[in-house]
Amino acid sequence: MEVIKTIEELQNIRKNITKSVGFVPTMGALHNGHISLIKKAKEENEIVIVSIFVNPTQFLPNEDLSKYPRKDEADIKICQMCKVDYLFMPEVSTMHTNEEVLIKAPQNSYVLEGFTRPGHFDGVLQVVLKLFNLTQPTNAYFGKKDAQQLVLIQQMVKNLFLPINIIPCDIVREVDGLALSSRNVYLDKTQRENALLISKSLYMAGSLIASGERNIKAVKDKIYKIMNSLDIEYVTIVDKNFNEINIIEPSNTIILVVVRFGNVRLLDNIWL
Amino acid sequence: MEVIKTIEELQNIRKNITKSVGFVPTMGALHNGHISLIKKAKEENEIVIVSIFVNPTQFLPNEDLSKYPRKDEADIKICQMCKVDYLFMPEVSTMHTNEEVLIKAPQNSYVLEGFTRPGHFDGVLQVVLKLFNLTQPTNAYFGKKDAQQLVLIQQMVKNLFLPINIIPCDIVREVDGLALSSRNVYLDKTQRENALLISKSLYMAGSLIASGERNIKAVKDKIYKIMNSLDIEYVTIVDKNFNEINIIEPSNTIILVVVRFGNVRLLDNIWL
Repeated sequence: MEVIKTIEELQNIRKNITKSVGFVPTMGALHNGHISLIKKAKEENEIVIVSIFVNPTQFLPNEDLSKYPRKDEADIKICQMCKVDYLFMPEVSTMHTNEEVLIKAPQNSYVLEGFTRPGHFDGVLQVVLKLFNLTQPTNAYFGKKDAQQLVLIQQMVKNLFLPINIIPCDIVREVDGLALSSRNVYLDKTQRENALLISKSLYMAGSLIASGERNIKAVKDKIYKIMNSLDIEYVTIVDKNFNEINIIEPSNTIILVVVRFGNVRLLDNIWL
Repeated sequence: MEVIKTIEELQNIRKNITKSVGFVPTMGALHNGHISLIKKAKEENEIVIVSIFVNPTQFLPNEDLSKYPRKDEADIKICQMCKVDYLFMPEVSTMHTNEEVLIKAPQNSYVLEGFTRPGHFDGVLQVVLKLFNLTQPTNAYFGKKDAQQLVLIQQMVKNLFLPINIIPCDIVREVDGLALSSRNVYLDKTQRENALLISKSLYMAGSLIASGERNIKAVKDKIYKIMNSLDIEYVTIVDKNFNEINIIEPSNTIILVVVRFGNVRLLDNIWL
């Protein structure tokens, strides 16, 4: 595995690859969720590029940029074990210059996560577009956990005619159901236990819908009831373009939940 | 030559090209200026793609979109004569969809042309990025006549790490000095004659600098004096990044002039 730090190196390497390229962009602190993306990329492509870059432009001023978990050495080992071909780990000054041509995410980037974190998705799309232009992947892999991010990236690829397949990948969970997240390390023991109510509520909502329920309010009520003891930020049911819906369509519905534990926001969702 | 109308056709064709690709984006109404770009592209690349698309998002509401000259049949013939390989002529609905991921040009897009035409360069960069993603050129050709556009496209390519060489091409002029422009057809006979003062003033400014003048005001005064009888919108002297300068540096200076004839704005410039 080759670790790449500069734009020039990456561009030179990419220029000479004629095989299929799978790309997995990450912010590091790799866990089994990331590993599942990398494994899928390995199965489906001849060359795999992983990037690790904690992108400052997608953090709001009051957010956890400075204490976001960094585990470079462990991450490099994980990528080696997964037989990644190229690991791109640029510095902030490598990825961002001063007077920038910016990407403006569409209106649906200012609801839900984008409502709580205005401008977050502008930063995400900006850096993902840059990484796409550098790596020119055949296929790029994103977890469904960051559902809104995934949908916005799919929309960017469509709007800007990027010749890239976006591959959505299922959420990976602990044995007890907690969705994997680099931010789970912030939870104390009690919070970690209480957080199980999140996935439980989503499973119960799923069963309810499987047994025929189509009413949004009934499903939301069920979720709120199970998570009654938690600090719920939102429970929302949308279609796969992130538009509000009036009735549940089982093949085109995402149920999204955000719960706060102190300053930590945990996201979870199911795609029906 | 193959004329292409849809995204799918173009993407399929591009996917199978492994040779070098030269790309010349235009708004049609092709004149010798465009032809010089196409010829240069032919010399320097194995495959040449030309696009003709009058992009509505770069016109302001009060501008000449509806009466912008359209000469599709003549344009197709010119491209055939120039041995263009692929001519991409999409409809507006092919290039633009509703809920868009947008490109925001940097601050220096709101001076000069961008001051008179706020938002113009956002539209230009948006459509050029889309065309770049579709055609994935090795080299892309732009005239120096639209100097600010050229500089902003160079900046976009740099900021977004696009693996494309931008090739600036010299302004092509009529024998009497008038810079070629699709908008020259709007001029009546008297206006056409008076318009010669524009290039004349730039030539004289060039000679003045060649003879040692480095003072901005002295050069501007000379230009204003020669174009005294015209409706001058601006005369500006900037460096090659479009920053204001205090003294003329012969290797890094552009003199820009915009003159109005009724509703018609004529741009001209020299790169020292």
